[in-house]
Amino acid sequence: MYKGKLITFEGIDGSGKTTQINLLKKYLLEIGRDIVVLREPGGTAIGEKIREILLDKKNNIVPSAEALLYAASRAELVKEVIIPSLNDGKIVILDRFVDSSIVYQGYARGLGVEVVEEINSIAVDGLVPDLTVYLDIKPKDTLMRIDRRKDKDRLEIEDVQFHEKVYEGYMNLIKSRPGRYFIVDATHDIYHIQKAIIDEVSKII
Amino acid sequence: MYKGKLITFEGIDGSGKTTQINLLKKYLLEIGRDIVVLREPGGTAIGEKIREILLDKKNNIVPSAEALLYAASRAELVKEVIIPSLNDGKIVILDRFVDSSIVYQGYARGLGVEVVEEINSIAVDGLVPDLTVYLDIKPKDTLMRIDRRKDKDRLEIEDVQFHEKVYEGYMNLIKSRPGRYFIVDATHDIYHIQKAIIDEVSKII
Repeated sequence: MYKGKLITFEGIDGSGKTTQINLLKKYLLEIGRDIVVLREPGGTAIGEKIREILLDKKNNIVPSAEALLYAASRAELVKEVIIPSLNDGKIVILDRFVDSSIVYQGYARGLGVEVVEEINSIAVDGLVPDLTVYLDIKPKDTLMRIDRRKDKDRLEIEDVQFHEKVYEGYMNLIKSRPGRYFIVDATHDIYHIQKAIIDEVSKII
Repeated sequence: MYKGKLITFEGIDGSGKTTQINLLKKYLLEIGRDIVVLREPGGTAIGEKIREILLDKKNNIVPSAEALLYAASRAELVKEVIIPSLNDGKIVILDRFVDSSIVYQGYARGLGVEVVEEINSIAVDGLVPDLTVYLDIKPKDTLMRIDRRKDKDRLEIEDVQFHEKVYEGYMNLIKSRPGRYFIVDATHDIYHIQKAIIDEVSKII
């Protein structure tokens, strides 16, 4: 449908998405491909304003409004940046996309998976990634890795439970859509993971 | 379900909503009722920030993002202000609500009525007005009334066509939901209209 390709990265916090996106970006630039790397929320004038609202810790946002704001930012990004880039033949790499909303807002925040799917189907207007890389790692393994255990208070313990829910959410999503995700064991070393991703990306570009 | 009552006002621009809301507010205060008058988007900390984005003329927002932002502001208003006020037994008066989104974004902007209904059912979480007053007037009659015809340029002519679409949208909505709206002929004089509204409000409070 589009000349370009849309590649999204998913996984819990600390799963290594940023590292792998940077390595993929480096590889694709070396082989001379035109690429765009984006992060949500943001990436457009309106999306950046929405980002300010969503990331301002002072704001206590109700879950439905949070999901609607993410979707509004996404709608702008899809129409203003992603689709024009795909039409130009670029490879668009996204650090999180609809799947993250389904897992974080729909599952972990308890808003309901179907509700979040509905909101987002409006926002993305039928756009589906050509490839979604899921970096598979359990929350306890990221905690050990980045040592977030020190000085845990009550809220930080809730935080661990929240990440467990996010992980469960990803597991359910993956089970419900067989074949939709390219699953990489994110406990492996960085270059092993990178090779697996590049091999898979090479099949579609 | 709630101790209070939710009354919404709908109608095209210039139909006299603000005038009638002020008169109803005056009447309800005189008879000693506790009331809250609200306007969308806005009314909460996050809603006001969303309002800035939506009303900033510099921003060229895609229709789906516009609808999602209105709904996000509405979700905050419903959960933070409207439902607590209704639980306190207050009469909540809203200048526009979900019906406006259905008509403006769903119908006039062409996003689709069902899509906008879906987004908003998430935002309002089942809340339905106890009474919706529709101030019925044709766009040409408001134009004559407030003399918006002088110095019309191309964009302002499009504006007239847009208001015609909004009017059509209201007509379709009303036809599709018989009995849901209290329809007042807004070409009548202000006090005649006020009396009709007070009579209807008196039935539910």
